[in-house]
Amino acid sequence: MALKPTLPKGTRDILPQAMLEREYILDTVKGVFKKFGFLPIETPAMENASTLTGKYGEEGDRLIFKIMPRGEKAKQSADRIKAKEALRYDLTVPFARFVVQNQNELGFPFKRFQIQPVWRAETPQRGRYREFYQCDADAVGSDSLLLELDFISIYQEVFQKLGLSVKIKINNRKLLAGFAEVFGIEDRLTDFTICLDKLDKIGEDGVAKEMLEKGFDLKAIDGFKQIASISGTNSETLESLKEILATSEIGRKGIEEVSFVLKNVSNDCPLILDLTLARGLDYYTGAIFEVVTDEIQMGSIGGGGRYDDLTSIFGLKNVSGIGISFGLDRIQLVIQELSRFPKFANQSTQILFFNFGDEVALESLKWVNALRAQGIKADIYPDSSKFKKQINYASNRGVAYIALIENMPEGESNRLLIRNMETRKEENLSLEELVAKLK
Amino acid sequence: MALKPTLPKGTRDILPQAMLEREYILDTVKGVFKKFGFLPIETPAMENASTLTGKYGEEGDRLIFKIMPRGEKAKQSADRIKAKEALRYDLTVPFARFVVQNQNELGFPFKRFQIQPVWRAETPQRGRYREFYQCDADAVGSDSLLLELDFISIYQEVFQKLGLSVKIKINNRKLLAGFAEVFGIEDRLTDFTICLDKLDKIGEDGVAKEMLEKGFDLKAIDGFKQIASISGTNSETLESLKEILATSEIGRKGIEEVSFVLKNVSNDCPLILDLTLARGLDYYTGAIFEVVTDEIQMGSIGGGGRYDDLTSIFGLKNVSGIGISFGLDRIQLVIQELSRFPKFANQSTQILFFNFGDEVALESLKWVNALRAQGIKADIYPDSSKFKKQINYASNRGVAYIALIENMPEGESNRLLIRNMETRKEENLSLEELVAKLK
Repeated sequence: MALKPTLPKGTRDILPQAMLEREYILDTVKGVFKKFGFLPIETPAMENASTLTGKYGEEGDRLIFKIMPRGEKAKQSADRIKAKEALRYDLTVPFARFVVQNQNELGFPFKRFQIQPVWRAETPQRGRYREFYQCDADAVGSDSLLLELDFISIYQEVFQKLGLSVKIKINNRKLLAGFAEVFGIEDRLTDFTICLDKLDKIGEDGVAKEMLEKGFDLKAIDGFKQIASISGTNSETLESLKEILATSEIGRKGIEEVSFVLKNVSNDCPLILDLTLARGLDYYTGAIFEVVTDEIQMGSIGGGGRYDDLTSIFGLKNVSGIGISFGLDRIQLVIQELSRFPKFANQSTQILFFNFGDEVALESLKWVNALRAQGIKADIYPDSSKFKKQINYASNRGVAYIALIENMPEGESNRLLIRNMETRKEENLSLEELVAKLK
Repeated sequence: MALKPTLPKGTRDILPQAMLEREYILDTVKGVFKKFGFLPIETPAMENASTLTGKYGEEGDRLIFKIMPRGEKAKQSADRIKAKEALRYDLTVPFARFVVQNQNELGFPFKRFQIQPVWRAETPQRGRYREFYQCDADAVGSDSLLLELDFISIYQEVFQKLGLSVKIKINNRKLLAGFAEVFGIEDRLTDFTICLDKLDKIGEDGVAKEMLEKGFDLKAIDGFKQIASISGTNSETLESLKEILATSEIGRKGIEEVSFVLKNVSNDCPLILDLTLARGLDYYTGAIFEVVTDEIQMGSIGGGGRYDDLTSIFGLKNVSGIGISFGLDRIQLVIQELSRFPKFANQSTQILFFNFGDEVALESLKWVNALRAQGIKADIYPDSSKFKKQINYASNRGVAYIALIENMPEGESNRLLIRNMETRKEENLSLEELVAKLK
């Protein structure tokens, strides 16, 4: 007996309904990316192992899938454990490699989007896979704040088109660096932001306690309390910041950048200045973004920011960049749970001709060919199976109309009896009438 | 100094222009697949190694990329060489695994298409990569010949839409089995078809000589000569076949199937009955297809056929299937060499606002937002760089119009000076006029 087929841990098949949902999301995202001047690229799944290792920290290195050595050399045990290739772990490091390697072919500023799977050997959980898509857009080669505005507009437009109400949180690394400077904790910026990030979850007292445990002094904790007490609109937050950061040059620069962005986004943009937002701080140098939906509990469904030094790991210095990503799996889950996917009826067969034997099938074929020539998704059930089986097939596939050729009176071969699968109403139509109905 | 970044042997980056070409081909193919009732699926890149090994012959097994074991066990040398996961080698075996594993979720007949990369550790050559896309459509769960007609129509429509003149070659395994029966070489069918397949290249005498060397007897060689002497239209070929295969039941069945297909395809279908066509014979059980273009030397750009036993390797018996694939890389090469790709100008920025400093940029932003709201691909050059740099950027990206706000007379802020990048003609337009022009 053959073995029951299975898949590796943390991987999955994607069936047609889920594929159509993902296509709907990605087509929306791609359309907006292109409207904003971003063009697609792809990089190979396999990179040189040396390109990837050392870029994601120790823990990241352990989670990289490596390719097993092949050939004669691999049989010697010393070479057996040294992989030459590995599967990409994200799209960012391969993109940095891509920009450096293809710099003479690309015009700068270079704006690209990239939608491809990545692989991570993490412990699988509900909604967390070992193979999943990332969907990134980045612009490199310019430090213009106009790009910050563009990425915010992209988020706003995509989620508007997907019918999701979201908040776009924004922060700036320079503000955080300013706090560290003013509070005298420049050398502990990362620790500090990790604490700050917990304000929502454990409250002001919780964070203060944790800071104390971590050995922050009272000046730093007082500073944190100043930040935590800020409330009100984005403008009011900015006013408070001007006081707190008055003595920090980098802090003032951060205020300037954030002010520019807040002033120039569209009036209806759901942008919130969130001073606790950090997201992989070591990486970002300016703006930091995160998108959350307030309609459902789901964590972040997008994020990004500005980085100034991405390509220097591959030898190209002083190339500022900024990028965002969309969390495809989570966005799909949110729209599913809110039942906001459109009907994909137009993606499926619009009219299915039932098959009652060869003669009817060949007569149907003429109709089907004529309808397909008009761009209509017409099909014949391939076998002359029982009526019940054919109707179940039509129903499961979400077919809109079925055509019942054998029910036609003789001498009426230029007209067709169709049934609306939803209303069960039957109609007798000419080809022209049918085309008009289905288009 | 950082190392010069490179890619693993046989892999490649795909830059925007090539991506747009591929999108154009794949969008065409997907649109036709969907019109014919096929829906998308995806399977993971990583399959269990046991799913893949033993399915592609000894040589194939050697070419499968395997994933290196991780964790503690992998440190023991016995486990080190035993991969649990491997990268898919084609889309066919994963599809068979998919059908069996998801059989309760799928309605049969099940029609799917799948466009994903596969990996093979072959020696890279010009146009042959270790990572490349396959683009397959299959229908499983019906042996109706209507599906043969559908796949032929799909090939015809896709290549028509891509503007390529092609020939669709068709053959049938049952005809070849009939020859073997009549010539008394049932046990050497594969050897025989390998010889037959060389008729085009080495001619009738060459094949006869090779058959002799391979130990075929005179009866078989005479049989081959009978086949080689067949010429004329498809109908004439069928008539000759009726004589040769009169005594073979399976041969007569093959004639019946081919006759049905030839009779019922559209009149303008470039279908050629080619008795030498075999393509991985062990796999196919009925119709065999291959598409070639006569406009350029390029080998086959598509192929497929009917198989009766694909899912039985995973325990699901008696499921007939039929499928075709498109050779994405070769189709792209053909259209490139014939310069038949459309201009992708509409995919790129339609109008680029030049940047002459913050004041102009913010003024431009209002225009850009208004144009984007109308669905137009408008953009601002992010930095106030030199004019020459901005014009080069516009030119390299194939931008259609540039907008030169600073050249506008004062008091005319409701009108815009634009320049056609091709004709260099300048115009002075209102927003409404501009939208009308660019839509």
